[in-house]
Amino acid sequence: MRKEIDMFRNFKMVSKVVFGRGCFDQLADILAPHRHAPSGFMVFLLDDVFSGSALESRIPLEQWDALIPVNVDDEPKTATVDALTRRIKDMAETGGKTVDGVIGMGGGSAMDLAKAVSLMLANPGSAADYQGWDLIQQPAVYHVGIPTLAGTGAEVSRTTVLTGPEKKLGINSDHTVFDQVVLDPELLAGAPADQRFYTGMDCYIHCIESLTGTYLNTFSQAYGEKALDLCREVFLHPTADADDKLMMASYCGGMSIAYSQVGICHALSYGLSFVLGLHHGIGNCVAFDVLGEYYPEGVEGFRKMMDLQKIALPKGLTAGLTSDQVEKMVDVSLVLEPLWENALGKDWRNTMTRDRITELYLKI
Amino acid sequence: MRKEIDMFRNFKMVSKVVFGRGCFDQLADILAPHRHAPSGFMVFLLDDVFSGSALESRIPLEQWDALIPVNVDDEPKTATVDALTRRIKDMAETGGKTVDGVIGMGGGSAMDLAKAVSLMLANPGSAADYQGWDLIQQPAVYHVGIPTLAGTGAEVSRTTVLTGPEKKLGINSDHTVFDQVVLDPELLAGAPADQRFYTGMDCYIHCIESLTGTYLNTFSQAYGEKALDLCREVFLHPTADADDKLMMASYCGGMSIAYSQVGICHALSYGLSFVLGLHHGIGNCVAFDVLGEYYPEGVEGFRKMMDLQKIALPKGLTAGLTSDQVEKMVDVSLVLEPLWENALGKDWRNTMTRDRITELYLKI
Repeated sequence: MRKEIDMFRNFKMVSKVVFGRGCFDQLADILAPHRHAPSGFMVFLLDDVFSGSALESRIPLEQWDALIPVNVDDEPKTATVDALTRRIKDMAETGGKTVDGVIGMGGGSAMDLAKAVSLMLANPGSAADYQGWDLIQQPAVYHVGIPTLAGTGAEVSRTTVLTGPEKKLGINSDHTVFDQVVLDPELLAGAPADQRFYTGMDCYIHCIESLTGTYLNTFSQAYGEKALDLCREVFLHPTADADDKLMMASYCGGMSIAYSQVGICHALSYGLSFVLGLHHGIGNCVAFDVLGEYYPEGVEGFRKMMDLQKIALPKGLTAGLTSDQVEKMVDVSLVLEPLWENALGKDWRNTMTRDRITELYLKI
Repeated sequence: MRKEIDMFRNFKMVSKVVFGRGCFDQLADILAPHRHAPSGFMVFLLDDVFSGSALESRIPLEQWDALIPVNVDDEPKTATVDALTRRIKDMAETGGKTVDGVIGMGGGSAMDLAKAVSLMLANPGSAADYQGWDLIQQPAVYHVGIPTLAGTGAEVSRTTVLTGPEKKLGINSDHTVFDQVVLDPELLAGAPADQRFYTGMDCYIHCIESLTGTYLNTFSQAYGEKALDLCREVFLHPTADADDKLMMASYCGGMSIAYSQVGICHALSYGLSFVLGLHHGIGNCVAFDVLGEYYPEGVEGFRKMMDLQKIALPKGLTAGLTSDQVEKMVDVSLVLEPLWENALGKDWRNTMTRDRITELYLKI
């Protein structure tokens, strides 16, 4: 029964979670114990689609707090993190103040920016220096995640995925994990239908990949199965509490990563993001759509959900690429060895050649 | 859609979780960063059924560490907690040492003792002074839970249930929550079949009560449904990984308590424990067995599992009691107002009279 694994990850959990319709209204109370010096301030990084919105006006800003709109049309870059960190440090130094916390409000990209900035406020150098595993030395400043899209699992994960000068790779660290998440399903209302779907499918596809993979134990299986059940309810049999379920699906999907791994779709998707700048959610969807051979039931369910949700995937995305660009996509995807191994076993290189990966990319 | 609740609990999570067959072997590495002073020591509270066992010999004791066997034939008492705390403080004071941590190994009782002792090492007075909600002022010393029985959810809950001079009531506090839990399904092997069943049913019954109750949201529902599914798999369709599933059922059941409440069975069970000294697990089972009117499907499933697991419940437990003793049981159960309200709604007093409760007790 015991698996041939030397060590099991000692999984760092989010310290505090509040879940419920309207719980965003508790934010002032939640932050209060973390406001230290009289000269301290909180920084709110808000996805700029909410600039001028009702949500923006509900942020409980206090005297010295900073509200910084962030644009995430492109996925987070290490250069963006460095610039934000510099800007916030300047605000603190100029006013003789200290940063009490960073709050990220938005989808996975806005939350990842908040995670990365909170780490870089406490660690020297550039965010690019820390892309990898457990390179962070100092704990981050207090940081809070408030999702307005559900599916990425960024609210509970120990990574913040960044595109650097040379690679797309997360800062994976126990210190990356949020100190607090605020899960208010009311904040999901109003997202564009396609964006809601693509982000939800991040969770669905992730679970299909992990549950059919070779790395898995009962902890991750239990979370993965529940996340998958919830995704199917949300997109195949939607009810009035669909947003509540989608938020829980994302949370469970994120937890399931503890002892599991994603697979082929995520490996291809990273290449698409790097070369085409595709967002992770839609990148997963267009990649998953060509993977019926590897995930037959998962892809069948995915297409049913697309039909029901009236989602039309973009086509021909790789048609105009140069062969150098395609080669680069293959390179980026091949770096992710554990993903291929999880999907196909230790001998994955025998079947998953550069030619085969190219063939898959050219179908997208 | 929004429920009429003023505030949602900001749920404190266990800081770190490791799950996997054999992960107990990682304990030395897990504790190492928490060993501070050269004169510091860890205290292991081990259920004394393991005295002289292979498990005992695997505990990674270092120079000044203390291994204290604890007897949990009776459920934990505030007096026991006070005596243990005194004893450990004496050890520290005599040797000029400091307590770096407390590790509880056993079922819910042993883990609850570890939680309570870790709190009382950092707070003045008697454990009885803190029975209630959020009365603890100082953070506990580092404390770790290592279950050898699964079902209570004590590994993730924010309470430690104690019987004091006047009441059975938990010390409910964010500081009660473990800093670390070690979930090794191999440690469940060897538990007596009836004890394993009664403890597992703590989880099953808890989920039936919370999922049919009037307090519930999607967070707790998702965890409760998964815990229930896992319990049914374990006791109706057991497979080789049943212990892995039972450990996850307990974990999910414990998490589901965040935004839910137990019901009639737990209210009756508290009275049985107080007057008859019945352990919580078996107390729940004998009470649940007379509650078919209130939880018809749940009780039907429970009886199927009992049959399959060849469990015979004790009968006639209340037959020899004096009327004073029965009155006391009714008193203890009636204190638990939120449980009755969760099960029967705001007007619960109209149907659940003292006579009706007495009638239920006399069937047990």
